[in-house]
Amino acid sequence: MKRPDDITCPVPHPLPPVVTMAHGGGGLLMQRLIDTAFRSAFDPDQLDRHHDSALLELNGSRLAFTTDAFVVSPLFFPGGDIGKLAVCGTVNDLAMSGARPLALSAAFILEEGLPMETLERIVASMQETAASVPVRLVTGDTKVVDRGKGDGVYITTSGVGLAPEGPAIEPQSIRPGDAILVSGDIGRHGIAIMAAREGLGLETTITSDAQSLWATVAALLEADIEIHCLRDATRGGLAAALIEIVETAGLGAEINEAAVPVHDAVRGACELLGLEPLHVANEGRFVAFVAAADAERALEVMAAHATGSPPAWIGRVTDARGRVSLTGAIGARRILDRPSGEQLPRIC
Amino acid sequence: MKRPDDITCPVPHPLPPVVTMAHGGGGLLMQRLIDTAFRSAFDPDQLDRHHDSALLELNGSRLAFTTDAFVVSPLFFPGGDIGKLAVCGTVNDLAMSGARPLALSAAFILEEGLPMETLERIVASMQETAASVPVRLVTGDTKVVDRGKGDGVYITTSGVGLAPEGPAIEPQSIRPGDAILVSGDIGRHGIAIMAAREGLGLETTITSDAQSLWATVAALLEADIEIHCLRDATRGGLAAALIEIVETAGLGAEINEAAVPVHDAVRGACELLGLEPLHVANEGRFVAFVAAADAERALEVMAAHATGSPPAWIGRVTDARGRVSLTGAIGARRILDRPSGEQLPRIC
Repeated sequence: MKRPDDITCPVPHPLPPVVTMAHGGGGLLMQRLIDTAFRSAFDPDQLDRHHDSALLELNGSRLAFTTDAFVVSPLFFPGGDIGKLAVCGTVNDLAMSGARPLALSAAFILEEGLPMETLERIVASMQETAASVPVRLVTGDTKVVDRGKGDGVYITTSGVGLAPEGPAIEPQSIRPGDAILVSGDIGRHGIAIMAAREGLGLETTITSDAQSLWATVAALLEADIEIHCLRDATRGGLAAALIEIVETAGLGAEINEAAVPVHDAVRGACELLGLEPLHVANEGRFVAFVAAADAERALEVMAAHATGSPPAWIGRVTDARGRVSLTGAIGARRILDRPSGEQLPRIC
Repeated sequence: MKRPDDITCPVPHPLPPVVTMAHGGGGLLMQRLIDTAFRSAFDPDQLDRHHDSALLELNGSRLAFTTDAFVVSPLFFPGGDIGKLAVCGTVNDLAMSGARPLALSAAFILEEGLPMETLERIVASMQETAASVPVRLVTGDTKVVDRGKGDGVYITTSGVGLAPEGPAIEPQSIRPGDAILVSGDIGRHGIAIMAAREGLGLETTITSDAQSLWATVAALLEADIEIHCLRDATRGGLAAALIEIVETAGLGAEINEAAVPVHDAVRGACELLGLEPLHVANEGRFVAFVAAADAERALEVMAAHATGSPPAWIGRVTDARGRVSLTGAIGARRILDRPSGEQLPRIC
């Protein structure tokens, strides 16, 4: 039984007895699912890093390893498709550890009756995206499930990458005073999917921001920017990314809401739908925590790789344990909440 | 439109326009799907190895990397469950390159409404299996799909392992005269799934052979056996494993049918169902191609790790290009065919 009251209830309580759509949303319920159902089986050291990829030491090399399942609906949307997402999502998880992508795997769960032409378009998109990173697809698997037991195609990509030496790029490395930068305007991906699915009839076609972030991260590393943490703002949006990082570090953040870039069309759609842009998913935007002295230089490097609006300096790290405060246009402050479930399921 | 005539037709012809269950079967149709839909996107060098994991060079280490999606139905069956399969399957793909498993990832696609208790049982099984290998689960992902767009839970595991130095353990390394060994009795997994699903009412409960093969492979490496190729006989059974290896190597094989161990209960079920035991899937059996001089010693090592019946020397490599011939109990020879589709979908 689906219990909608569970989805929005912010007070901890026993898990509902069944999985709900909200458990997949990157919010509080998902974190609770991980803590309750999954924690026992996974390496606690890696889980406690709360980061997008695991780091493994291998004969003196630092290997990043990550996985993501993609179940986006629809399979094709303005600015991308499930194949592009599957490559970018895993490349970006590696990049967020500063790791150069070495190789990807892709496992396909195909629904009986999927038009072969659809599969071929998706694979062609994966190939094109992988070539642009560049990264090689080196191994894969295919399973077929009965009609009505899937939804066209689900793809799980995993990746291995070579992480840089030196202090790890991870939430625990952020410090009070760090500058918080965002790589471009937020909320495009979520709104693009919502518009494609619901036929919102918006005046402007909003295209997804889905893209590989590796080139930008590589340029930041090349420029010797003192990077403390990177995080792509996917499910749960920029809000979830910020909150999870500062909570993990036991620190806080102050964000200047007016500095956060949001495209007018995205802002309009959010107002129409009653959504908070900071909660809307992205697939090609990241937040960077860097030493304040390097912030301007980092922005220049990021600007050279930006698509859409330029990157922005949106705030700073504080010592307000686990609290992200947002200063609005008229100076009023509020505390940013992590979404509990998900505005829109199957966004990636 | 599903065209059943495509499923059994052994003559190459254009792909049918939609994905059918048979495309997931590990047989001819699946190979054709890989060649037609996937080949362009994947690294040709790795694909042409026709092996279970890709090998990557990383600062002097040889890294094995593999992925597998698991969609088995039912989720629980005698001798295992989807969680145990998901860990063993990926560990075994690494082991088949001689690689010591370093770390696994697991991505879950959960269907809305899945009882939380079912998920917890599966995760507990993964934990127990991973601990027994041993290997760590270091990273994961969870997505939830709408009711009727999944089937409880699908799991994709990927793995990285450290492959040994020296000549690669892969199909291209086999030589005429090599001994062909099988690690135990075949066909248990497929028959266990079929019995669980169809309620065959067999007299004996046949348990799946699902198990990690790493301990056995580690012992073979430790004993310095000259291993040329290893392959776990999963979808398509022992037949598909043998045929794919000799085809890749441009060689052949002679198999003594009477030497292939098959449990009486499995043989009985196969006769009842009109199945060829050599085509039935396994999840804890492998075939080893070793230098003939090391065959007896390899059997001793494998016997020390065997579950069920002891390992057996079942044949030898010949130079009969791509042909696996089978000598039956009364001396008649026949050519072993690769299954075209699948006897039974969603076996793993």
